[in-house]
Amino acid sequence: MSANIPKTVALIGTGVIGRGWIRVFAARGVRVRLHDADPAGVANALGWLRQDLEADLADGFVSSEEAAAILSRVSGERELGAALREAEYVQESAPERIEVKRAVFAELDRLAPPEAILASSTSALDIGEIAGGLPGERRCVMAHPFNPPHLLPVVEMLGAPRTDLAVLERACAILTACGQIPVRMNRYVKGFLGNRIQAAVVREALHLVETGVADPVAVDAVIRDALALRWATIGNFGANHTNADQGIAQYFSRYGDAYRGLIADLDQAPPRFDETVLKRVGEAVERREGVRSVAELCRKRDVMVKKLRKLKDAEQGR
Amino acid sequence: MSANIPKTVALIGTGVIGRGWIRVFAARGVRVRLHDADPAGVANALGWLRQDLEADLADGFVSSEEAAAILSRVSGERELGAALREAEYVQESAPERIEVKRAVFAELDRLAPPEAILASSTSALDIGEIAGGLPGERRCVMAHPFNPPHLLPVVEMLGAPRTDLAVLERACAILTACGQIPVRMNRYVKGFLGNRIQAAVVREALHLVETGVADPVAVDAVIRDALALRWATIGNFGANHTNADQGIAQYFSRYGDAYRGLIADLDQAPPRFDETVLKRVGEAVERREGVRSVAELCRKRDVMVKKLRKLKDAEQGR
Repeated sequence: MSANIPKTVALIGTGVIGRGWIRVFAARGVRVRLHDADPAGVANALGWLRQDLEADLADGFVSSEEAAAILSRVSGERELGAALREAEYVQESAPERIEVKRAVFAELDRLAPPEAILASSTSALDIGEIAGGLPGERRCVMAHPFNPPHLLPVVEMLGAPRTDLAVLERACAILTACGQIPVRMNRYVKGFLGNRIQAAVVREALHLVETGVADPVAVDAVIRDALALRWATIGNFGANHTNADQGIAQYFSRYGDAYRGLIADLDQAPPRFDETVLKRVGEAVERREGVRSVAELCRKRDVMVKKLRKLKDAEQGR
Repeated sequence: MSANIPKTVALIGTGVIGRGWIRVFAARGVRVRLHDADPAGVANALGWLRQDLEADLADGFVSSEEAAAILSRVSGERELGAALREAEYVQESAPERIEVKRAVFAELDRLAPPEAILASSTSALDIGEIAGGLPGERRCVMAHPFNPPHLLPVVEMLGAPRTDLAVLERACAILTACGQIPVRMNRYVKGFLGNRIQAAVVREALHLVETGVADPVAVDAVIRDALALRWATIGNFGANHTNADQGIAQYFSRYGDAYRGLIADLDQAPPRFDETVLKRVGEAVERREGVRSVAELCRKRDVMVKKLRKLKDAEQGR
């Protein structure tokens, strides 16, 4: 077992994002203490965890021993102080409002063991604003997961202005040891990396449907059965690099002007997000996938993502 | 065997795109006749086909019987007329210049059997300009593949103004029977569907690297190990639909304003395509993948895409 796997972590806030972290840590033998300002939140998260493990058990993604071991490592704590006891790493997933996050971080800094790393799951706020000026600013980082984190392993990482570089590196080492792929940002930008790239795709995909160029299943097939096969394999830059014998520099020296022309022609405005169109898109997706509800589609997606992950992990020697 | 699989097709133009079609048809038992204005082109394509099949044989993706059967179904023809003999479907993949395409289509229309469908692989031109005004305009369609088409099955489809709808539908049925996923466009737009969405991703991914927000491996990890796992599973709209309990309409009614803010913040200008930056990106990709050349990376990509395709085909019951 890697020396970088902590013995104990605290997860503060147990909504969809917070509870998602449980399996990342507990599956690696870490003791996980949960706390939520709303006591019902912890009970809900534990209920969800049991269901999630049962579904995975039914699909053969975990053994009953693993599922039992994961459950045995997780406990709920009514008091924040109790949840933070012995924690080497604290992951905060409170509501996404700056005044809430600042208050929670002040409490964490006051109550957590002095050497504990304090990490925020924030998906939109600047860690500099969340932790700036705290006595323990040096130990605060952003660690923004994708959902669910045990399936989509990337975590976007950024420090506050006075975060110790060694803390940021230690946080990355802990997450790596627990199977995640931390990626470092050099400064805050709105949406970080993933939501910006996702917004770029959403904008053009919806634009093509809203303006009647193609129907949603056609647009989605291009993504699902062509572009994303390359992206999931070697990323966007990897795909660009394999598009010319001499690699990416040759590719863009050859096609840079075509890209300039195309980019000028992309829609620059946000889509209309028209409800009638969106309902039609949702129905088309469900018909295509042969499901009758969003919940059914979520399950189908996660089963397939698990299989993809297994394949990729084997390929990448993880 | 599906009634929609043709007995004989002609592939006109045997560069990277043209030769890519060989395996789509030959693997389904279709007799494939190749022709290129340059006689060396056909020989090169046949040499490539043998190498490609040998590599797949070594990796266990085809049996030696299948490889031999595919080779036995393909022949090169010096004369265009001979290549078109008995063809039910003709796929043109000539150089991407409008005057070349128009001249080739005029020849095809003059020489091909009267009921043969004439399809263009064009990746940028309007089929209306290529085939407009020909006596046989009614039988002309665009069928733009991704590369290589036997791995990335989507084909973008569009008719000329006077194309018979029945011809377009027959072309889609033929391609579907041969394992492809034809997607219909309703009108010409620059870049069609796939290149537009790819350009949207390239723009933002390069923007983030060029402006120093993150290094290329970080940006690519977000695509490769997070976003593309969902996209390859259920597409962009499928991912949006699973992001709220009530589906995509609820998702965008909740986050539409966040998207508007984010889209306003996306870079609207094309990247600089700076050669020094691009070389650094290419080197980072090769280091990450543990390869020493673009050719090695291409092979690695294709092996992985084949495994993903197998998994997806099984999942989607194809």
